[in-house]
Amino acid sequence: MRIKHAIMIGLLGAQLDRFTTYSGPRPLEERLEIVHSLEGVDGIEVGFPGEFRDLTSGLAQIKGSGLAVSAINQNTKQDPKWREGSFTAADPAIRAQAVQEMKTCMDLSAELGCYMVHCCPLIDGHNYCFQADYLKQWEWLVETLSEAAAYRRDVRISLEFKPYEARNFNIVADTGLTLYLGTLVGENVGLTWDLGHALIAGEAPARSIALAGQAGRLFYLHYNDNMRDWDWDMLPGSVNVWDLVETLYYLDKLGWEGWASYDVLSRSGDDIVQSQVATLKVMRLAERFLDKLGRDRLAELIARGHPYEAVPYLWEAML
Amino acid sequence: MRIKHAIMIGLLGAQLDRFTTYSGPRPLEERLEIVHSLEGVDGIEVGFPGEFRDLTSGLAQIKGSGLAVSAINQNTKQDPKWREGSFTAADPAIRAQAVQEMKTCMDLSAELGCYMVHCCPLIDGHNYCFQADYLKQWEWLVETLSEAAAYRRDVRISLEFKPYEARNFNIVADTGLTLYLGTLVGENVGLTWDLGHALIAGEAPARSIALAGQAGRLFYLHYNDNMRDWDWDMLPGSVNVWDLVETLYYLDKLGWEGWASYDVLSRSGDDIVQSQVATLKVMRLAERFLDKLGRDRLAELIARGHPYEAVPYLWEAML
Amino acid sequence: MRIKHAIMIGLLGAQLDRFTTYSGPRPLEERLEIVHSLEGVDGIEVGFPGEFRDLTSGLAQIKGSGLAVSAINQNTKQDPKWREGSFTAADPAIRAQAVQEMKTCMDLSAELGCYMVHCCPLIDGHNYCFQADYLKQWEWLVETLSEAAAYRRDVRISLEFKPYEARNFNIVADTGLTLYLGTLVGENVGLTWDLGHALIAGEAPARSIALAGQAGRLFYLHYNDNMRDWDWDMLPGSVNVWDLVETLYYLDKLGWEGWASYDVLSRSGDDIVQSQVATLKVMRLAERFLDKLGRDRLAELIARGHPYEAVPYLWEAML
Amino acid sequence: MRIKHAIMIGLLGAQLDRFTTYSGPRPLEERLEIVHSLEGVDGIEVGFPGEFRDLTSGLAQIKGSGLAVSAINQNTKQDPKWREGSFTAADPAIRAQAVQEMKTCMDLSAELGCYMVHCCPLIDGHNYCFQADYLKQWEWLVETLSEAAAYRRDVRISLEFKPYEARNFNIVADTGLTLYLGTLVGENVGLTWDLGHALIAGEAPARSIALAGQAGRLFYLHYNDNMRDWDWDMLPGSVNVWDLVETLYYLDKLGWEGWASYDVLSRSGDDIVQSQVATLKVMRLAERFLDKLGRDRLAELIARGHPYEAVPYLWEAML
Repeated sequence: MRIKHAIMIGLLGAQLDRFTTYSGPRPLEERLEIVHSLEGVDGIEVGFPGEFRDLTSGLAQIKGSGLAVSAINQNTKQDPKWREGSFTAADPAIRAQAVQEMKTCMDLSAELGCYMVHCCPLIDGHNYCFQADYLKQWEWLVETLSEAAAYRRDVRISLEFKPYEARNFNIVADTGLTLYLGTLVGENVGLTWDLGHALIAGEAPARSIALAGQAGRLFYLHYNDNMRDWDWDMLPGSVNVWDLVETLYYLDKLGWEGWASYDVLSRSGDDIVQSQVATLKVMRLAERFLDKLGRDRLAELIARGHPYEAVPYLWEAML
Repeated sequence: MRIKHAIMIGLLGAQLDRFTTYSGPRPLEERLEIVHSLEGVDGIEVGFPGEFRDLTSGLAQIKGSGLAVSAINQNTKQDPKWREGSFTAADPAIRAQAVQEMKTCMDLSAELGCYMVHCCPLIDGHNYCFQADYLKQWEWLVETLSEAAAYRRDVRISLEFKPYEARNFNIVADTGLTLYLGTLVGENVGLTWDLGHALIAGEAPARSIALAGQAGRLFYLHYNDNMRDWDWDMLPGSVNVWDLVETLYYLDKLGWEGWASYDVLSRSGDDIVQSQVATLKVMRLAERFLDKLGRDRLAELIARGHPYEAVPYLWEAML
Repeated sequence: MRIKHAIMIGLLGAQLDRFTTYSGPRPLEERLEIVHSLEGVDGIEVGFPGEFRDLTSGLAQIKGSGLAVSAINQNTKQDPKWREGSFTAADPAIRAQAVQEMKTCMDLSAELGCYMVHCCPLIDGHNYCFQADYLKQWEWLVETLSEAAAYRRDVRISLEFKPYEARNFNIVADTGLTLYLGTLVGENVGLTWDLGHALIAGEAPARSIALAGQAGRLFYLHYNDNMRDWDWDMLPGSVNVWDLVETLYYLDKLGWEGWASYDVLSRSGDDIVQSQVATLKVMRLAERFLDKLGRDRLAELIARGHPYEAVPYLWEAML
Repeated sequence: MRIKHAIMIGLLGAQLDRFTTYSGPRPLEERLEIVHSLEGVDGIEVGFPGEFRDLTSGLAQIKGSGLAVSAINQNTKQDPKWREGSFTAADPAIRAQAVQEMKTCMDLSAELGCYMVHCCPLIDGHNYCFQADYLKQWEWLVETLSEAAAYRRDVRISLEFKPYEARNFNIVADTGLTLYLGTLVGENVGLTWDLGHALIAGEAPARSIALAGQAGRLFYLHYNDNMRDWDWDMLPGSVNVWDLVETLYYLDKLGWEGWASYDVLSRSGDDIVQSQVATLKVMRLAERFLDKLGRDRLAELIARGHPYEAVPYLWEAML
């Protein structure tokens, strides 16, 4: 296993929920400086269209930063045009735009050397019974993603599933569905696996990682945490200690190599940077705790399958 | 759409939860008599090994009843041998038995003319972190089901997903995962789609039906209801009125034809039969309410996509 | 039962979630005009400090509108000063401000003739383990609310519980806790009972209404709907049909009289007004459906206690 | 803080869920022998009527064991007579029996020196809309418990809340409601606080403990664990590591002294005893981990209120 750690530079700006604005935007330059000041960062995840409202200057600034890019994060929810959907909008012109922007992101990702477009299509889905034509929505999803995937097979499209929010029922909802979708649209379409999203989908996180890894579609990671009820975007390891360690154990077993970034929301207003620092710290501590537990010992415990042995072992290791 | 209504004859016996036994077992003969006494029943769903502890006499009784059989329901959780898993048990002999029994069920289903084996592998999964080898469990699942599916392609294997119970994390968990599994094991493997299970998996029921239907893998239906928190096996339409109507709308749109049965638990001790009667009544009333709403009018409302139009329309129709 | 219907004039402006802004703000004048244009509205719920940034002109506009006021809605979450809490902030100066503003709201409510302050203290609580001193937070809550409640007993303080959001764990969390809190702080402290909040607290809505009514602390109502997972603020009756009817049945049984307002969020951008119109329509249709069912017939069914009788009866009534 | 550890002797027998029986019953004698063989056990929790079908011989065996008794656990769900409710049954004769048995338990508890009756009224509540008269149920609950509480004030009645199971909506549902109920029925009525039940009620466990402790109604503890979705009765510390530590921190801060017992379900059939051994081990390890963290250091972190400081501190301590 080799996890490279990226900072989502979009996260270093405004943070809000629907009631309260916790912090305001910061110019790209300032955010890149922050990244430079942090230890243990391997690169950045860059938002589109966010950082590319002016394509040339955006590209120049990103390249000029000298930072490795993990992925282009295509946002299809913030601009008003997406209010009724993106890849599954009833309006064909909107769907075409979503595809066109994905192709642009694919080219950008190639130019920036990562060959990875990450997209979490949060505006695609529905809220109410009798609000959407599910048959058409699925056809549109397969059709638009297939077109994008075929545009260039050297770039990977990494879809981040999430069961709900912004829609009550997002269409790219969980690990199984995204793997199924992948079989329909192509080998360069896989998963951004987000720990918090897996938790709210009711999945056993490490099992989902194992499944996506076996399928050869585990492209990218997002880590954070929550209480399995809502995507609170909390610090990793702040709730589900064993799931964090177990996912690392399976990434290791899969020999997985790639990028992780950290969707962590701060709701105090002045601690975005400290939250990212704490996140990276916990991720490294979790890897060291896995070392302390010992991979072979864990493999034995798994083979024996007795929680009455494994659980006390984990607690003993904490002392 | 043509839904044929089956009674699960296993349900007409003992009903219990982990604290209280609400009713005791009834001999097969008595249960078959009950079915005969009910109106509007098209057939029965028959449990294995339950009704086939003696294969010959079981078959004779079922055939002798003159009732159509919707499916053989293979139970891989009740007998003590399954306590550590069935299709994914670590012990290869247990896995072999699960496959062997599935083949027996396939032959039985052919003999009884339904060519359908239904199975809800509720004992396959895990409860704790570091209790199971997820990589191996998935391989075993694919391997065993593939062997069974290849045994005879003229019989359909209909897997009933469920996210949890009896295991904290069942391995055949949701619609997307089961569709993905189907792509790996064969065209005669599809879904028993259970409304209650879809609800607790956080799915939009009618959307899941649409998706499974589009995939050609919607083999069989189970209807009941709950509050999206636990598989309470309540009367259909007792909680989610619009979801019931919307699933019927999509079954109709898909032109679906097949069997439904009704996993309804009674917790009063003496009203199992009345509960099945009420169930069938509600299913027919829901079809009539769909008629009252009008399929074309609903199609229009869906095309317009405004909940502020659809929701008052639904309530007006109730008056 | 006599429910008077109020429009939250704050809702007629900006609507957003944390990813997307669906509609922008509207000046008070325009919002009051909208209310005047709607049929079947009995009054307005008015936000503080929102509409009272200039106290004199705010009061003048509200009074000038000629509309009855249902309650002053004290907001203690939006202004940056509340970011670390209001009634339970660690900083005593902030707590004092929350109390002071509540007293102002009490006076305003008296001046506007409603003698009711509604407050949903969504910023009071915590997100993480080891982030808050629970012993102190509770003491502060009791202390601050007691001071406000004692300020004038002729004004009712109506607390809206909610288990989570904006905090992962709000301190005024559910019906039982709010009733308990009421016993500690005074008879003029009771509940704004919000159907959506009761649902996400896992409560049986009509039972909570019955309990709060029996306690003499059911002061005010908020209606909307959701799938029991998150406070989506959907149209009433769009998910939980029977719960809506059952709450009306119990309000009727309690002989309850008072105001309801409707926390309904639109996520399409241009249909805020239509959503309020649809809301009022559904509420009146639900009352008529209750008439159709018949209160005496429902009382009988409840007395018999057989779901196999009640559920088909409800569906028959829809035809 | 001084927690005395009790074994529920009822747990050492049959274990089942609604699909599978994992282990069979054991005679009382054998179960008492098991308890004698375990290290670190301070006493036993004894079920009524379970161990007292013959009152004299039951008492003799319990006394003869020489084991301290933590509480009499009054079961009002298993015997068929309770199928429609106990303290809130519509039939007054059943309610009278529930009260009468509680009085018997109170006397037994006095005779056995613990002066504590524990009761989790899981059969009281409802499943469906329009199935129960909520106004009457609450009156009956207050009335019956008041009668029992008044019978002798020297015995404490410790109610274990639980939001659901066996009923979809249990009437004694959560911490807040039970505290409110306590104010209505007397000072000798308080809470058995069950970590697993608090989790599925969506509560912050340590906050609930603090609240019940402040109210002087924290009478008894049950520890186990789950994923906040269902009362799986898992080993403590197997899911929610920080909540376990935080509850111990607050028990310590409250200077709480009393009994805890451990509602841990084994679903493997042969490891009930090992599960209780593992449970006691984890509870002691958790206390030692709290020592390692340091109460003063935790108090400081709480006072500062920054998760970005507390969370990495917790992980560092694990190495």
